[in-house]
Amino acid sequence: MTGRDSPSPRATRRGFLSATAGLAAVAGANLAPGGARAFEPPPAAEAAKTSEPFWGEHQGGVVTPAQAHTYIAAFDLVTTKRADVEKLLRQWTDAAAALSEGRPVDIPGDDGYAAQADPSDVLDLSPSRLTVTFGFGLGLFEKDGTDRYALRAQRPAAFVDLPHFPGDQLVPARTGGDLLVQACADNPQVAFHAVRQLARLAYGVANIRWVQAGFVSDFGAGRTPRNLMGFKDGTGNPATSDPKEMDAVVWAADEAPQWMCGGTYMVIRRARIALEHWDRMNVSFQEQTFGREKLSGAPLGAKSEFDPIDLAAKNADGDPVVPENSHVRIAHEMAQSGARILRRSYSYNDGANITAERWPPWRQGMEFDAGLIFVCHQRDLTNGFIKIFEKMSRFDMMNQFVTNVGGAHFAIPRGVAKGEFIGQRLFEAAS
Amino acid sequence: MTGRDSPSPRATRRGFLSATAGLAAVAGANLAPGGARAFEPPPAAEAAKTSEPFWGEHQGGVVTPAQAHTYIAAFDLVTTKRADVEKLLRQWTDAAAALSEGRPVDIPGDDGYAAQADPSDVLDLSPSRLTVTFGFGLGLFEKDGTDRYALRAQRPAAFVDLPHFPGDQLVPARTGGDLLVQACADNPQVAFHAVRQLARLAYGVANIRWVQAGFVSDFGAGRTPRNLMGFKDGTGNPATSDPKEMDAVVWAADEAPQWMCGGTYMVIRRARIALEHWDRMNVSFQEQTFGREKLSGAPLGAKSEFDPIDLAAKNADGDPVVPENSHVRIAHEMAQSGARILRRSYSYNDGANITAERWPPWRQGMEFDAGLIFVCHQRDLTNGFIKIFEKMSRFDMMNQFVTNVGGAHFAIPRGVAKGEFIGQRLFEAAS
Repeated sequence: MTGRDSPSPRATRRGFLSATAGLAAVAGANLAPGGARAFEPPPAAEAAKTSEPFWGEHQGGVVTPAQAHTYIAAFDLVTTKRADVEKLLRQWTDAAAALSEGRPVDIPGDDGYAAQADPSDVLDLSPSRLTVTFGFGLGLFEKDGTDRYALRAQRPAAFVDLPHFPGDQLVPARTGGDLLVQACADNPQVAFHAVRQLARLAYGVANIRWVQAGFVSDFGAGRTPRNLMGFKDGTGNPATSDPKEMDAVVWAADEAPQWMCGGTYMVIRRARIALEHWDRMNVSFQEQTFGREKLSGAPLGAKSEFDPIDLAAKNADGDPVVPENSHVRIAHEMAQSGARILRRSYSYNDGANITAERWPPWRQGMEFDAGLIFVCHQRDLTNGFIKIFEKMSRFDMMNQFVTNVGGAHFAIPRGVAKGEFIGQRLFEAAS
Repeated sequence: MTGRDSPSPRATRRGFLSATAGLAAVAGANLAPGGARAFEPPPAAEAAKTSEPFWGEHQGGVVTPAQAHTYIAAFDLVTTKRADVEKLLRQWTDAAAALSEGRPVDIPGDDGYAAQADPSDVLDLSPSRLTVTFGFGLGLFEKDGTDRYALRAQRPAAFVDLPHFPGDQLVPARTGGDLLVQACADNPQVAFHAVRQLARLAYGVANIRWVQAGFVSDFGAGRTPRNLMGFKDGTGNPATSDPKEMDAVVWAADEAPQWMCGGTYMVIRRARIALEHWDRMNVSFQEQTFGREKLSGAPLGAKSEFDPIDLAAKNADGDPVVPENSHVRIAHEMAQSGARILRRSYSYNDGANITAERWPPWRQGMEFDAGLIFVCHQRDLTNGFIKIFEKMSRFDMMNQFVTNVGGAHFAIPRGVAKGEFIGQRLFEAAS
């Protein structure tokens, strides 16, 4: 899940203000002497080195090696018109393709202002391996019982609602959404810039419901990153480099409607971690909770991180070496039963606020609002996250340090070919 | 202000769990087979490449070339005992010195728990040019009229309170604090990890009042970074590479008490920017507001970023080329009058929430909670930030897009020599 590098972020967005110069000339007012100038086109070869492909069978940001930063935005659709949604998705597609190549978004807004194109705060930065992933929430298909956009019949049977899980404390303002944009990049400003552009294009059609930034550190090529609990996170993940594995675990195929064929289902959970509480535990207790060694990442009783997990091993007292309620044991048992997901999570760090912990000694006070933006992808929600988390939310020892305070799930449609827009086949199927 | 690079963040924190193994053995319970192990000491040469010095005449994080990330924490002192404060500063000094070299913090807590040392989430990461800057708020010297720690007499005359500025909407929960920790690093996890360690050591003595993360992108060596408004930010800053300039602008000298000699005064403002509003303005209007060209950063009427600002130049209509109320003009006039500061700001990006803009058309709704963590350092507060911002808060055209929603100011004591603790000379002077 690493594979990131940090190439020199030199200028690859020149050419930006050529469009702006035109707009300013039209607006006519206050153009400063020597103001906006036309520039040569971006040096494509240089940009390509830090670009991830946008067009293709699958969307980016799913099996793409994790970039260092994410910025996720969920939108509520506020328009009553299907044509508005279609137009938005068309503009978003064009914009995301440009952003992925480090080009400015040259699409003015629709809102009656002398709308300005790209604000250029990432001018001179490279594409930074930006990927933009689009998703559709249940609300696109049906909202409060109404079929707003005549898409209800196209909702995949497999795109079920999530149950309430034990311990969930989902805050509505951080939960749900009709549309998803996940921007991942090796630079946080580039990721935010992308969402800001897409949000600008959505004015009047879709409003931001919640946003969430996240990060994952580069621990070196081939090394599993550690999350804020200090443990390696992602060891047991299926190999994104193995297309057959991804077909089995991640990508929807013939069982799905044609527009979802090559897509996936994504679950996001904002898992706040009681770091102050966790930091007071002995490492040995933490290791019992995880079921792995903290330093090496090895399963308890094994030597190295990628050693097999021995569920049958007993210690001298006859107790399981990997405790019954440890995180890794439950995950492993679930995988053995066929419930598999691809995790692609980020840490988050949103300041501090007053909170009450879920477990004894029920500490209350000012605590870090930090934790994990858990993200997973799967071909089958019911036999994926839902099955796994129904078990974990009841039995995982880690629950006493982790509270799910927000989340959402989305159908991530298949990728787009040049000339198409994202979700086009959904709209065609329902026309 | 750039000068950052991104060297390979390979392992430089080995040796961590040696301390832990000891603790676990004492705790005695549940140590997993093959649990925590002792490791070889960190490869010092490798760590040094990404280290900033901790000991010295001045604290780090002031004239240090800006790292890519910051994590700022303000604390309220809750102890009544001066000895507790002194002990905390002693522990913080040791911890910060270790963290700066990429070593774990091997100081157990005092809170009756089998306290665990460093949670190791940055194990395998380099020091990432971490600097930890400590500051003292007015509340250390006097709180609600009481001289809690017998330090009141040592408060420097120059360490004045800030006035209320026009337009200020400071939220108490984001304002003030008795102690400051500013951790800056090229990796966000390393910066947060540092604060988390220091906060852990403060349990029962000082509570977190507010925290704030920020970032600044590396636009390439020698290039001025752009902030979220898309303009270059920092062009007119005094040169941190010029010690004489820093002595003149930043470092307190003989006019200050001995413990502040070599220190500085720091002002932090959380300046929320109405990005949605800003993005709807023409570039020409934005340029009039700033007083600089967006693309090149040149002062209006000039050719290049570092050209002098011609305040006398008039356009064909007889109006100033650099508008009267433009940001750069006011800043430049203030500098000419002798009011000088060193800016060291970061962008911030804290999600989205419902807000009301300050200016017509007074938009209300879901907006990005993003903007600038304005940070400045100065030898003289009254003739520095206060003088400048009294003018700017009244006249700067940029105010219609920017609202100060939090902030604080601190005395940043002189740096520490090995064997000393931060602020030691303050406590000695008051003993």
